Amino acid sequence: MHFADALTAATKEKSPVCVGLDPSVGKLPDGISRDIKGVQAFCEGIIDATKEVAAAVKPQLAYFELLGWEGMKVFWEICAYAKENNLLVIADGKRNDIGSTCEAYADAYLSPDSPVDALTVSPYLGSDGIQPFIDRAMQNDKGIFVLVKTSNASSGELQDLPVGDEVVHEHMAQLVESWGMHCIGPKTHLSCVGAVVGATYPEEMTYLRTLMPHIPFLIPGYGAQGGTAADAKRGFLPDGTGAIVNSSRGIIYASKSKDWRAAAEKAAAKMAEELRTATTSH
Amino acid sequence: MHFADALTAATKEKSPVCVGLDPSVGKLPDGISRDIKGVQAFCEGIIDATKEVAAAVKPQLAYFELLGWEGMKVFWEICAYAKENNLLVIADGKRNDIGSTCEAYADAYLSPDSPVDALTVSPYLGSDGIQPFIDRAMQNDKGIFVLVKTSNASSGELQDLPVGDEVVHEHMAQLVESWGMHCIGPKTHLSCVGAVVGATYPEEMTYLRTLMPHIPFLIPGYGAQGGTAADAKRGFLPDGTGAIVNSSRGIIYASKSKDWRAAAEKAAAKMAEELRTATTSH
Repeated sequence: MHFADALTAATKEKSPVCVGLDPSVGKLPDGISRDIKGVQAFCEGIIDATKEVAAAVKPQLAYFELLGWEGMKVFWEICAYAKENNLLVIADGKRNDIGSTCEAYADAYLSPDSPVDALTVSPYLGSDGIQPFIDRAMQNDKGIFVLVKTSNASSGELQDLPVGDEVVHEHMAQLVESWGMHCIGPKTHLSCVGAVVGATYPEEMTYLRTLMPHIPFLIPGYGAQGGTAADAKRGFLPDGTGAIVNSSRGIIYASKSKDWRAAAEKAAAKMAEELRTATTSH
Repeated sequence: MHFADALTAATKEKSPVCVGLDPSVGKLPDGISRDIKGVQAFCEGIIDATKEVAAAVKPQLAYFELLGWEGMKVFWEICAYAKENNLLVIADGKRNDIGSTCEAYADAYLSPDSPVDALTVSPYLGSDGIQPFIDRAMQNDKGIFVLVKTSNASSGELQDLPVGDEVVHEHMAQLVESWGMHCIGPKTHLSCVGAVVGATYPEEMTYLRTLMPHIPFLIPGYGAQGGTAADAKRGFLPDGTGAIVNSSRGIIYASKSKDWRAAAEKAAAKMAEELRTATTSH
């Protein structure tokens, strides 16, 4: 199934909640060994606890790479485990390169037998660094999310630079919309090319939604970073689809004690309810 | 030793040649098994053949990630092998993220016991996505190279957008110079923060050298991509230091037959001689 159609179906069936898997050995809860086996058990536990309510998980590659090749082995096992448990898998790698190197990244994450459904990518290199990802996404029913306006405090240093009558991230948004128009899903009329737009910049998000009507949004910055359901709502389409909202720390570290599974489940359910309320209110 | 001092010493002792390790299973030369063991043997063979003339190797993470966690195991082994053979190791990952995730990438590649000396990073996120790398580089005598003006055809889509009286990559260059001023090497007065500037845009490189007087340049685009020694020369300081020039395909795939080691050695020596001639002529 086309990625945008699968994403929309999952958010309708469950919720637009995406659980960010950012496992740090030093932050693992009580009762889990503080090593790589603990990281795997923790991620599996979070998946078990949230799979009924969340549409997707977003494993963050940095935390797995930090654990060396053994960490990458766990990364792939966790992606497969999430997939088996009916979750979409968004690998957060912010990968970017050109030519055959970009093709290598695309083949690494978006090949037909990969458990990864979508990959985040960084756009500094221009379309040479994006098109190979789009090609693989179209061929293999996968997706990408291109960084447009990120949630962090310094995102404006480059992304808000004025370019004529607009700013860099608005220009990038129009590029993303143009790239995405060539791979629209048959059911949803949304693209397999998505955009990362932070919940911490709600006014920008409102305008970016108008610039990218065919682009699914991956919205970080919810919860621990300060974004609310009312902020995130601005990234959705009027029918309540078209976006997925990520929370990492707010869910996976909801409790450091032995009730961490139940606490994660509760935090994900609360977030789903907040988003449901926000996106169905007018 | 401070990274810029080590880089300068290595380029003076040997040459400013950096050998890009972009190993594809499908492109391995005759006499090498077309599998992951072949990739490892090939990279070791290239290191053996070029270590007397090259200052550095630049393993491209994408090609190792494409081979799964087993590929990442080979990546770390190849980095260690290059280090043992007196080569600087520049991991080409173009990593980028924020906050604790950025710290995880920095710790993954730039920790004290890592065989990696420097990492390429992508700047779309602003200084939040750069400072954790700089902190680790300063603590551990490591370096980073920030993408400023890349060698590919579409690099201008974002990097050449006009911002007031300048363009985005010029603005980025000034940010890189300002970030780099806080970690200058005691011998060379060059920073542990470097910049990626493509040889395929020689006029831009001339101007970028003036905007970043304390910044070592990593210059891709030499050889197969069209950049010449005369183009690359523009990225060097007047004394012939301050830059390292990468060639990947032109060296590692200089021959597909059984003489590939000798052909790689010859190609690296030829490039070193071209750069020596160009940077010592006036």
